[in-house]
Amino acid sequence: MYRLTVYPTWQSVVEAEIKDGLAVVIDVFRASNTIITALNNGAKEILPVSEIETAWELKEIHPDYLLGGERNSIKIQGFDLGNSPLEYTGEKVSGKGIIFATSNGSRALKSVEKAQKVWVASFANIGAITEKIQSVSADMAIVCSGTLGTPSLEDTLAAGKIINELSTLEKYTLNDYGLLAWGSYQRYKNEIFETLLKSRNGRRLMELGKMDDIKYCIREDITDVVPQYDGKAITLSM
Amino acid sequence: MYRLTVYPTWQSVVEAEIKDGLAVVIDVFRASNTIITALNNGAKEILPVSEIETAWELKEIHPDYLLGGERNSIKIQGFDLGNSPLEYTGEKVSGKGIIFATSNGSRALKSVEKAQKVWVASFANIGAITEKIQSVSADMAIVCSGTLGTPSLEDTLAAGKIINELSTLEKYTLNDYGLLAWGSYQRYKNEIFETLLKSRNGRRLMELGKMDDIKYCIREDITDVVPQYDGKAITLSM
Repeated sequence: MYRLTVYPTWQSVVEAEIKDGLAVVIDVFRASNTIITALNNGAKEILPVSEIETAWELKEIHPDYLLGGERNSIKIQGFDLGNSPLEYTGEKVSGKGIIFATSNGSRALKSVEKAQKVWVASFANIGAITEKIQSVSADMAIVCSGTLGTPSLEDTLAAGKIINELSTLEKYTLNDYGLLAWGSYQRYKNEIFETLLKSRNGRRLMELGKMDDIKYCIREDITDVVPQYDGKAITLSM
Repeated sequence: MYRLTVYPTWQSVVEAEIKDGLAVVIDVFRASNTIITALNNGAKEILPVSEIETAWELKEIHPDYLLGGERNSIKIQGFDLGNSPLEYTGEKVSGKGIIFATSNGSRALKSVEKAQKVWVASFANIGAITEKIQSVSADMAIVCSGTLGTPSLEDTLAAGKIINELSTLEKYTLNDYGLLAWGSYQRYKNEIFETLLKSRNGRRLMELGKMDDIKYCIREDITDVVPQYDGKAITLSM
């Protein structure tokens, strides 16, 4: 049996538990979807960073790269793009590198950089993600990014969907949070939109007038794009 | 609207969020059930402590009190009772005070000692707990004790059952973990026993040969006992 450990937040990741296996990182609102969309629209690579200063330093090394990202859900001053996936159109990102500064999603990726393989997931690519997972025999971690150290409903439900759709689930021992994620996904799966409007981040995005982002970020199984992170850059997984 | 905040672990409690309201503490395996059983069987009061040394110090002040508790699920050397609720019979505890040293349950109680009112819950007394909650108009916290800082399935499902049975739920804004607890309870409510055998603590108790404790601790709505904690002692709430 392998372990399938779902972490409620990136802060709760235990490095010793993840370093020999596979890690799947989820930040539904919105970093996962922005990354998936950018790669789907032809971006060459994405360099995730946590700090704005680091983004500017990388910009000096890669002056042709776009700057994208957010602080408190809002676009950073002087940046080309925010953290709405709807901004990452083919026109803007095709063939480009992107330096991507998000407070939470980037730190979630860093929390698993010691894993053997790191993939980025959201509802949009769960079919493709589960297919790839099924080809790997190893312990697996699903890291829900969470919000300021607390569990997020949207990330946990996406984790639950991965578990629900794994045809190789009998190979794994699920941890308690995985059983919670799976159970609540099964309960809410026919009303994901209505349920996520009640979530902390759903309410926050509504307050910011970002209903289109909510709707975009919860679309299910619409792309085969699986972003892979090598500790430095995110590129299309082959 | 009041806030109904479910915390996945006692470590995640934010004191500023709980100090003006009501707190319900849950440690299904097994402190909640031991406390409920002891009071149901006539114990006078229970003094919860985290450290074994503190227990012995209190024993000097109250030489007639019983010593109960556990370390790593096992009875402490020299103590009268362990942490199995089945040990707390009327014959043993009726009319007695109990000094109760548990690593997790006691710390969970301490984490909310600033709340206006603190009650102890498990599946056994949820009917009585929800009835009492419905008489209070204030913010409410439900603290799942968790295990070594990670969420526990059994505590979270019991929290979900409280939410599910609150007739005054429309008065509250639920946090994300509350929505997860509620959803997973609805999914698992008809198979609580089978589901909890897969949980970390369920597996641990099975390994220790404590199947009777598991069965005892998940009995639902069998008592009106609501233990109340005043920062020092747990007694029957009137």
